[in-house]
Amino acid sequence: MDYEIFDLGDFALQRGATLRDCKLAYKTFGTLSPAKDNVIVYPTWYSGQHYDNEWLVGEGMALDPSKYFIIIPNMLGNGLSSSPSNYPEPYNGPRFPQVTAYDNVKAQHRLITEKFGIEHIVMVVGWSMGALQTFHWGAMYPDMMDKLAPFCGSAKCSRHNFVFLEGVKAALTADAAWNNGWYDEKPAKGLRAAARVYAGWGFSQAFYRQKLDIETLGFSSLEDFLVAFWEGFFLPKDANNLLTMLWTWQNGDISDNELYGGDFEKALGAIKAKTFVMPGRTDLYFPPEDSENEVANMPNAEFRPIESVWGHFAGGPGTNPVDVKALDDMLKELLAA
Amino acid sequence: MDYEIFDLGDFALQRGATLRDCKLAYKTFGTLSPAKDNVIVYPTWYSGQHYDNEWLVGEGMALDPSKYFIIIPNMLGNGLSSSPSNYPEPYNGPRFPQVTAYDNVKAQHRLITEKFGIEHIVMVVGWSMGALQTFHWGAMYPDMMDKLAPFCGSAKCSRHNFVFLEGVKAALTADAAWNNGWYDEKPAKGLRAAARVYAGWGFSQAFYRQKLDIETLGFSSLEDFLVAFWEGFFLPKDANNLLTMLWTWQNGDISDNELYGGDFEKALGAIKAKTFVMPGRTDLYFPPEDSENEVANMPNAEFRPIESVWGHFAGGPGTNPVDVKALDDMLKELLAA
Repeated sequence: MDYEIFDLGDFALQRGATLRDCKLAYKTFGTLSPAKDNVIVYPTWYSGQHYDNEWLVGEGMALDPSKYFIIIPNMLGNGLSSSPSNYPEPYNGPRFPQVTAYDNVKAQHRLITEKFGIEHIVMVVGWSMGALQTFHWGAMYPDMMDKLAPFCGSAKCSRHNFVFLEGVKAALTADAAWNNGWYDEKPAKGLRAAARVYAGWGFSQAFYRQKLDIETLGFSSLEDFLVAFWEGFFLPKDANNLLTMLWTWQNGDISDNELYGGDFEKALGAIKAKTFVMPGRTDLYFPPEDSENEVANMPNAEFRPIESVWGHFAGGPGTNPVDVKALDDMLKELLAA
Repeated sequence: MDYEIFDLGDFALQRGATLRDCKLAYKTFGTLSPAKDNVIVYPTWYSGQHYDNEWLVGEGMALDPSKYFIIIPNMLGNGLSSSPSNYPEPYNGPRFPQVTAYDNVKAQHRLITEKFGIEHIVMVVGWSMGALQTFHWGAMYPDMMDKLAPFCGSAKCSRHNFVFLEGVKAALTADAAWNNGWYDEKPAKGLRAAARVYAGWGFSQAFYRQKLDIETLGFSSLEDFLVAFWEGFFLPKDANNLLTMLWTWQNGDISDNELYGGDFEKALGAIKAKTFVMPGRTDLYFPPEDSENEVANMPNAEFRPIESVWGHFAGGPGTNPVDVKALDDMLKELLAA
């Protein structure tokens, strides 16, 4: 096992359930300085696990473990932290409760303060749902960090993004083998269908027009890309885990809590950290227009799009080296600012 | 019955099968002039039937039946022309053969020449898959018409568009009730899933951001829009018909025939008619960039986008009166040119 577990004990969730003996899986890179002043928090993305974040960590990169103590907490529901697939009865499988991004960041805050005694964070950074958690960090603990670097994500799930996810969910759950989550064998047909639905959203029209699936990623045909990359991506994942995280995503909103009572602009305005909001220019479900709206309501934020035709994958997970370089350069600039 | 049937007899298809006693359903508006010089052809779109085209026909509009003889031919597979749902054994249901846009336009050409003795067309016009057929008319019979008006469509199914349709297909066919097309009762779960997948593609991010589903279309909530509009749209349609037309769409290419041997630019270059290529500015599966590429390869075409946030529905079916006006104005300009 290449990661650690933090026991959250009885963890009461925002929507009412309590996960008893709740586990938060995490991995760290680098060494916590004696002054505890070199911390970067880097949450995971939809279905991703900590090792899926490691492409952005390395010597000479912005997230340099020789300088920073980098903590990657796994999202609840992702199969490593407490999840439908690993949680004991009676909250197991499809009975796993609704978990919000707020819950996730509460859990991460406990890890950081209780386990490590950290009071200050240099930067929170994340891709996609990791960006959602990054925004939550900024709104829930506005005095705790210097910088925020959400990329290819949003502070609130947009209505269009919600609809896109409805399509993914409907495809997965159309498979009778899903059986309302009480499957013995995985609903492979539904997972494959969800993958094909996702394929059109993950990369941009220009990406497909330029045949980068073949020319750059090296797949032998479009169908090979759909099977080997997309179906291969979804098939190993647990359906209930995917649906739990999908719910977390659809209900993501930094203002949907006791701090802001649903006032989204107030929540954005409360974020004090210097922030680069970095959408992918051609991201189909986190379009740059939503980022511009966020920046307009944040006192200390800049709109810094990643100019790329790689759609959502402009931001990760390290798929395109050119975009990784652009992103890493912006992170260095933000850290130096 | 508000429409006519033209009997194509034994209709040999491009991909090898023959539809015996093949039927082409059509409806006409207006009166054919003695000189037979006032003809407009207006093919149908994915799953649409002739009455779904009528929103663009009317006194005082570009498609004015007091001036023009307007022929709306129903696409093969749409449930009125020969289709999986109405064709006799043995080519019924899932055995219905692969039909191309080339086949459709061949059939329409026979209707127009054999039934009506028409040798010249003023304009061919169509939305979406109707635009695909419009482009085919121009490439297959380049000396036969003065004008072409494809809107929110393309001359060839792009790779991204193909992937989007794979998602729709995968969602529909993930339902065990589909049973490889041998269903007795309709695969309602699959149809509903396909509808939810389609919902994110049909309208733009900005449409959903501006809540036009509620503010303009009058639905009571986003979920009401997904159920009442989208699922309500798909549920009455026959699954095999949808899959037949989906295949037609995915394999649409004006150059994939004996005339052009797959040379797409040559086929575009062969279109002589004065053409307005009119994409929706925010159409997610027929993005304007593809239209610009078409226009660049056509000798007599103009790029005339419909400036709208209604995505693919900028072009039809009459959903947004503002866009209908913009489109109708461009059609009047094209007809007058």
